[in-house]
Amino acid sequence: MITVLRLGHRPARDKRVTTHVALTARAFGADAVLVSTRDPGLERSIRGVVRRFGGTFRIETGVAWRRILNEWQGTKVHLTMYGERLEKVLPRIAREDLLIVVGAEKVPRELFDLVDWNVAVGNQPHSEVAALAIFLDRLLGPAALGREFAGPLRIRPSPRGKDVVESGT
Amino acid sequence: MITVLRLGHRPARDKRVTTHVALTARAFGADAVLVSTRDPGLERSIRGVVRRFGGTFRIETGVAWRRILNEWQGTKVHLTMYGERLEKVLPRIAREDLLIVVGAEKVPRELFDLVDWNVAVGNQPHSEVAALAIFLDRLLGPAALGREFAGPLRIRPSPRGKDVVESGT
Repeated sequence: MITVLRLGHRPARDKRVTTHVALTARAFGADAVLVSTRDPGLERSIRGVVRRFGGTFRIETGVAWRRILNEWQGTKVHLTMYGERLEKVLPRIAREDLLIVVGAEKVPRELFDLVDWNVAVGNQPHSEVAALAIFLDRLLGPAALGREFAGPLRIRPSPRGKDVVESGT
Repeated sequence: MITVLRLGHRPARDKRVTTHVALTARAFGADAVLVSTRDPGLERSIRGVVRRFGGTFRIETGVAWRRILNEWQGTKVHLTMYGERLEKVLPRIAREDLLIVVGAEKVPRELFDLVDWNVAVGNQPHSEVAALAIFLDRLLGPAALGREFAGPLRIRPSPRGKDVVESGT
């Protein structure tokens, strides 16, 4: 079970990036995303994708993130450019009930101490979306990306154009 | 030489996602990003990162994207959830003077025919930022992510907190 916790989401400013975080979490093998700020529009949009493309991915917004971090029983990983190198720490990260925390631009300083691991996907500034994709890809292996979600919509790989198969529900 | 071409950028709506595209391009080993819509604020922000963190990454906005695609001499790859599977086509993609095209929500239909390869990083909806990161990671190998940029600011990996080294310029 892999859960992504998104901190610092501001609905007006971060809607699109947080949508990317949630869809990346789903496509790369996580089971759920929790978003610190309440955002019904974001929930609707992600649930719409799950309904159309399948799977059991869950989203919840407006969560009490400090309590979640304090009470989490499994492993807590914070993805940050300031953290330890991914390739160094990945083999040591216990995978049971994993919580992956990604922040928006600024995260509260205390976060660094509330998790078990601060992990850097490269020590350069880039994107929590890219960091999450690479982290999940390294954690679960490239096969995770190719798995079937068995939804009513399915995309067939195509060299030119869009081949979307719609199955009866 | 690897160039990323970002299409469909709307400065108000996509500023943050396009910033993530550009920074991901830089951190994962591309040399430049071209953005279809003019956006001086975006240019300033990316050049600021390059100045502080180093390297020779370039950004240009307001480019004539159709002309660029028509006149490009090297290989042109479009990252799209509708494309062929990455693992299948990657070995066949010539890497000389590579142009990687990523769109925002909708791309013009003609784009699919203007490129050499339409490539899917998984056939599920997620994020052009994640797709770009994984594509560059598979293309260049994981070592690319760890390389030094020799800028005035350097981040030292740390288990707890922020260790930023500022060197004299």
